[in-house]
Amino acid sequence: MIGGGGNAFIGPIHLKAALMEGEIELVCGCFSRTYDTSLATGRKWHLDESRIYADWQEMLRKEASLPDGERMDFVAIVTPNHMHYPQAALALELGFDVVVDKPMTWSLDEALRLQTLVQRTGRTLALTHVYAAYPALREMRSRIARGDLGTLRRVYVEYTQGWLSQRIELCGGNKAGWRTDPRTSGKGGCLGDIGVHAWHLSEYATGLKVTEVCAELSTFADGRPIDDDCAAFLHYEKGVKGILHATQIAVGEENDIRLRVFGEHGGLVWSQLEPNTLLLRHDDRPTEVLRIGNGYPWLAEETRARTRLPGGHPEGFIESFANIYRNFALTVRARMNGVEPDPLWLDFPTVDDGVRGMQFIETMVASANSDGKWTPWVYAPL
Amino acid sequence: MIGGGGNAFIGPIHLKAALMEGEIELVCGCFSRTYDTSLATGRKWHLDESRIYADWQEMLRKEASLPDGERMDFVAIVTPNHMHYPQAALALELGFDVVVDKPMTWSLDEALRLQTLVQRTGRTLALTHVYAAYPALREMRSRIARGDLGTLRRVYVEYTQGWLSQRIELCGGNKAGWRTDPRTSGKGGCLGDIGVHAWHLSEYATGLKVTEVCAELSTFADGRPIDDDCAAFLHYEKGVKGILHATQIAVGEENDIRLRVFGEHGGLVWSQLEPNTLLLRHDDRPTEVLRIGNGYPWLAEETRARTRLPGGHPEGFIESFANIYRNFALTVRARMNGVEPDPLWLDFPTVDDGVRGMQFIETMVASANSDGKWTPWVYAPL
Amino acid sequence: MIGGGGNAFIGPIHLKAALMEGEIELVCGCFSRTYDTSLATGRKWHLDESRIYADWQEMLRKEASLPDGERMDFVAIVTPNHMHYPQAALALELGFDVVVDKPMTWSLDEALRLQTLVQRTGRTLALTHVYAAYPALREMRSRIARGDLGTLRRVYVEYTQGWLSQRIELCGGNKAGWRTDPRTSGKGGCLGDIGVHAWHLSEYATGLKVTEVCAELSTFADGRPIDDDCAAFLHYEKGVKGILHATQIAVGEENDIRLRVFGEHGGLVWSQLEPNTLLLRHDDRPTEVLRIGNGYPWLAEETRARTRLPGGHPEGFIESFANIYRNFALTVRARMNGVEPDPLWLDFPTVDDGVRGMQFIETMVASANSDGKWTPWVYAPL
Amino acid sequence: MIGGGGNAFIGPIHLKAALMEGEIELVCGCFSRTYDTSLATGRKWHLDESRIYADWQEMLRKEASLPDGERMDFVAIVTPNHMHYPQAALALELGFDVVVDKPMTWSLDEALRLQTLVQRTGRTLALTHVYAAYPALREMRSRIARGDLGTLRRVYVEYTQGWLSQRIELCGGNKAGWRTDPRTSGKGGCLGDIGVHAWHLSEYATGLKVTEVCAELSTFADGRPIDDDCAAFLHYEKGVKGILHATQIAVGEENDIRLRVFGEHGGLVWSQLEPNTLLLRHDDRPTEVLRIGNGYPWLAEETRARTRLPGGHPEGFIESFANIYRNFALTVRARMNGVEPDPLWLDFPTVDDGVRGMQFIETMVASANSDGKWTPWVYAPL
Repeated sequence: MIGGGGNAFIGPIHLKAALMEGEIELVCGCFSRTYDTSLATGRKWHLDESRIYADWQEMLRKEASLPDGERMDFVAIVTPNHMHYPQAALALELGFDVVVDKPMTWSLDEALRLQTLVQRTGRTLALTHVYAAYPALREMRSRIARGDLGTLRRVYVEYTQGWLSQRIELCGGNKAGWRTDPRTSGKGGCLGDIGVHAWHLSEYATGLKVTEVCAELSTFADGRPIDDDCAAFLHYEKGVKGILHATQIAVGEENDIRLRVFGEHGGLVWSQLEPNTLLLRHDDRPTEVLRIGNGYPWLAEETRARTRLPGGHPEGFIESFANIYRNFALTVRARMNGVEPDPLWLDFPTVDDGVRGMQFIETMVASANSDGKWTPWVYAPL
Repeated sequence: MIGGGGNAFIGPIHLKAALMEGEIELVCGCFSRTYDTSLATGRKWHLDESRIYADWQEMLRKEASLPDGERMDFVAIVTPNHMHYPQAALALELGFDVVVDKPMTWSLDEALRLQTLVQRTGRTLALTHVYAAYPALREMRSRIARGDLGTLRRVYVEYTQGWLSQRIELCGGNKAGWRTDPRTSGKGGCLGDIGVHAWHLSEYATGLKVTEVCAELSTFADGRPIDDDCAAFLHYEKGVKGILHATQIAVGEENDIRLRVFGEHGGLVWSQLEPNTLLLRHDDRPTEVLRIGNGYPWLAEETRARTRLPGGHPEGFIESFANIYRNFALTVRARMNGVEPDPLWLDFPTVDDGVRGMQFIETMVASANSDGKWTPWVYAPL
Repeated sequence: MIGGGGNAFIGPIHLKAALMEGEIELVCGCFSRTYDTSLATGRKWHLDESRIYADWQEMLRKEASLPDGERMDFVAIVTPNHMHYPQAALALELGFDVVVDKPMTWSLDEALRLQTLVQRTGRTLALTHVYAAYPALREMRSRIARGDLGTLRRVYVEYTQGWLSQRIELCGGNKAGWRTDPRTSGKGGCLGDIGVHAWHLSEYATGLKVTEVCAELSTFADGRPIDDDCAAFLHYEKGVKGILHATQIAVGEENDIRLRVFGEHGGLVWSQLEPNTLLLRHDDRPTEVLRIGNGYPWLAEETRARTRLPGGHPEGFIESFANIYRNFALTVRARMNGVEPDPLWLDFPTVDDGVRGMQFIETMVASANSDGKWTPWVYAPL
Repeated sequence: MIGGGGNAFIGPIHLKAALMEGEIELVCGCFSRTYDTSLATGRKWHLDESRIYADWQEMLRKEASLPDGERMDFVAIVTPNHMHYPQAALALELGFDVVVDKPMTWSLDEALRLQTLVQRTGRTLALTHVYAAYPALREMRSRIARGDLGTLRRVYVEYTQGWLSQRIELCGGNKAGWRTDPRTSGKGGCLGDIGVHAWHLSEYATGLKVTEVCAELSTFADGRPIDDDCAAFLHYEKGVKGILHATQIAVGEENDIRLRVFGEHGGLVWSQLEPNTLLLRHDDRPTEVLRIGNGYPWLAEETRARTRLPGGHPEGFIESFANIYRNFALTVRARMNGVEPDPLWLDFPTVDDGVRGMQFIETMVASANSDGKWTPWVYAPL
């Protein structure tokens, strides 16, 4: 693992999620640029000190030189956005598979280069769009794909947080710092941090791609050099229309993500704050409450493969992360063994999702910069 | 009352709301163009047959000729939009006060003329923006006005229905007919039917006016000659930004109206499906659940004046309507008696709200017709 | 109307509920023992002063002497419990139909005498068990009666309030006074005020009668001379078992009533705080959300007869009260006209429910006084 | 680990919970009496075959003979109830610390012997009352202990499931089998499986002990030789009264656990289906929504020690289990190292809770067998 030292938020989550299924062990790490921090973190995780590094390049190169069976199998990258590309690129070059947090890179250009590198090396890259890894999202995708809602029409997706309503990045020492600095986060603030999750959820659930956007980026906290709020009308393939909004200045809101999809004959409604429930709207009978649980035969096989518990035993955020890690691990192991992975294991976001995510950011910024003009999806780097 | 005959939806609601406070009696009505229907409806309400009319003009003129104490005091107009203006105009000319359903008129031009007429005649006109008459909305308005949220930043308002997901207007004999026909509804379909409610809620709660919009109108049901879905980014005064969306094609959704307002230090969240609850978000302590009930001293006096019951005894849609009727009746009676109405009674929408509502529709249509271009508020008729 | 003067809670609710359907007019009243209060209340309701009384006996006798068409048709009794019997008895003797609030009388003995009187006079008596008059309760009753849940097994009913957690009755001038004084409330405090509602809901929904109880009555507020909390295990006919609890000392709870009924193949769950929703549990498919609204064909005809609005337009407590008043009024008018009432109109609680309610109170007290011994239903007065 | 093979429910959960914090590794297991099943399960968890056993006694003895550093440190027992005692007893005798699922033993007599054994050996035993390990329960306990609610009065605790509404144990091959057979489950069916959780939650949150009960045990599924439903009135220390009910025949209910505690000045309300929310009721101001999340300074330090994520990132059932395992592991490691464990780590149920749990079962059965007579807490084995 690269990153996740000290009081980092997402690194420890990656680790717990990776460990819980018994498919992955932590064997080495460079948790911080500061060796003391890296060492303290590594010790906390009971790592051998010889495998705790202060320099990620050193770690990648040294691990690559270790014998089979001892060498790490893959690397998880949980650093600020601007480090994703160099770290992932070197890991791929050295023959490692990679898990990387979203957004995949700092720029679209980097994303395209990473895509090329993955194709060239044949390695596996997983992108942790964790919200799409909830079982309920898989159920949405499955039901929509098989036509339960009829022809799709409307998508509403939103992501509401309040933790950046004040300029807490000025206090220093917190996770707000790099997220609100374009040099480390890239072109998107709220847009890159959570807007890209919202967009991804909508494409994942519907199986449709956005083709053009009409966007507005806003900065509500005085002096912040990047957006802390974004919104867009979206046009998807096949005439489907969407509304997306994400904000980090909605005071008192924690992490409220909602997705609603309506077709000609039905609708599906999901909220991350109660992730194990899905409402299925009908035009001719009462709404059904689709509860997630591995014992419900009316859930898709793919959905049940993402759950561990019977209904009424809440699964949460870490389990969702663990779905990505387990599928990634099973896929990587199969490929190591020259075996075709079970299609159920391939259920994780890849470098292609990462490229589209960076294109989404570029498209949004382009539209917002042109006063909300409808802007076609940006395929080329700008 | 004019309209409300047969199986009409909103007419009987107006009546029940008008009657429940004991301030208003039904004395006459022209419930339908068809005399038999009007007669049957009037009898159902125990009217004397001499006061049941088949022609609204006849009713207005005849009632105007009756002696004081016998003559009706005011008229409620619950007909399709294109009839509002001629009926309200004649009533005003003949000296009656008027309650009229929203949108106030078929066109902005009519609205402006009605405004002039109200000013000239000095009569009272109430517009039934019923959702803004819920106690919780008054509480939002009061708290925002006194600065509880700090400087406002973000408004989200939405109105989601599904009953027009199919072209049920083609079946005839239902309330979808005139709502989806521009000749009777005006320029807005979904926009005029419910979008205008959403807009009004947001201005009512925040006390701020929209200054420009970036809109998209959509028609999802094939062949429908008017929008059945609308959305807009809104700019309000003082730099506040809003997102509004309303739809009538969200299959299985009943009447889901939500309003969220966030300022620098707090937020307020309301949903019409549970109208007696308001969530108050803070940046420094847990969310509070503000429940509506006349015994809670922490609610504004104006809020408590809109409730009838202690907490835990649900008040609903009809009570909200009744708030408008009671306030209108008390105001009209005071004015009849040459007395200044209590400021609490003036808490109902007027002809000025009606004019702004029609301007909203015009502005939305203008923006949508220019491919979502940011369009300043339309003051003049187009 | 007798009672309801000054700042009374339930009287004005009765009136609004009675008025809203246009079937009932207020023609006279004795709203308080104090003439000034009665007068002020009567004037507020625009009564002619000649019909505002200070003495209920005088009112009943004088009204009885008025000519047909002028005389009141029935009387609503909204006084403390100990006054119900004398007032209802005289009204019946004088030929008036009666609406009376629950519990029907101060003692079981009075209840039985009232039952005899109703039988002898042939008049109509309605008891305002308002919670059973919600549409959702009718839906529960209909579905259970037609076997949707299979053989019944378990009933959970609860009623939770917190307003009596302190001895506010000592402050005087509030509705807690007579409710916590056995001389005015009868044997039950919480038991008679809300416990009896909970019991009634369960019998209404299941169509089953309680046959024995194992009860505990508690007084948590020091020095209060009557229970402020009650609980019981219930045995119903056909082997069905229930748990009932009601309290008035659950600090911060408003009026939280819940009823859950489970049979061999399904369950129904209802909460008064969201009265327009009913959850239907299945053993072989997802839970359905049965929403109340007059347009849903899957609701029973009887349910729809209790609603006024399409789904998503909340109906509340006053509408529930109005269901009783409207049905009572239609029934009384039909009987006046020598016509058989429509069976749908007979959907209101009668003197027989009132007798069972008093038996419930007696049975609960008897069990509690014997240290929770299982006690058979008390049919005779004690 | 002993147990958890094949399609067992709770075994794999224990494992995932144990692994996720990186404090525990799986080194050996006897997952089933059938060697093939044990082997398959062990391989799935990537165990060395030499450490996969078919016989738990063999495993315990062989592991005990292994050298330090190789030998397992503790054993988790996830077998049917009747096996808990012999397995835990031998483990303790051989010097292993133990994690055991609830109820701790098959009989109270076994529980008392286990308690003696723990005292004699000085080993650590953790009992997985998982629901009490949710952060919200710790918050309830902390707030009640510091007097936020004032003097306690009322406790409501309930546990509602529906999966045993039919006699699915007759189908064989499922987890219902041993749970409904007194030879394997002990005296309690529903009582021992989930009733004991409900009781434990209430004592954990309030810090008070039950002193007497008035109980009813029921069997609704024809022919089932043990209760599938239980209910009781409870008297706690200090005059606090409780109502407990648990059922496994509430068709369609998943795993609905609720706990409500009311004192003289406040109340706390929790539901397991949304475990990260706690409602705090007040008598003088609006209800507060206490959300769980490690960043909220108004939560007790002990509560935050049980969470991993900021608010709005749902933690669930497995995280709750992991709280017990982590605390147990940290405690055991400290004791191994001769260090006093941090008081925060001692936050897990012990053998003493296990003994009280078995006493609860005995007391309930005794009361139910005497027709619901109030029965004092059973301290001695019966």
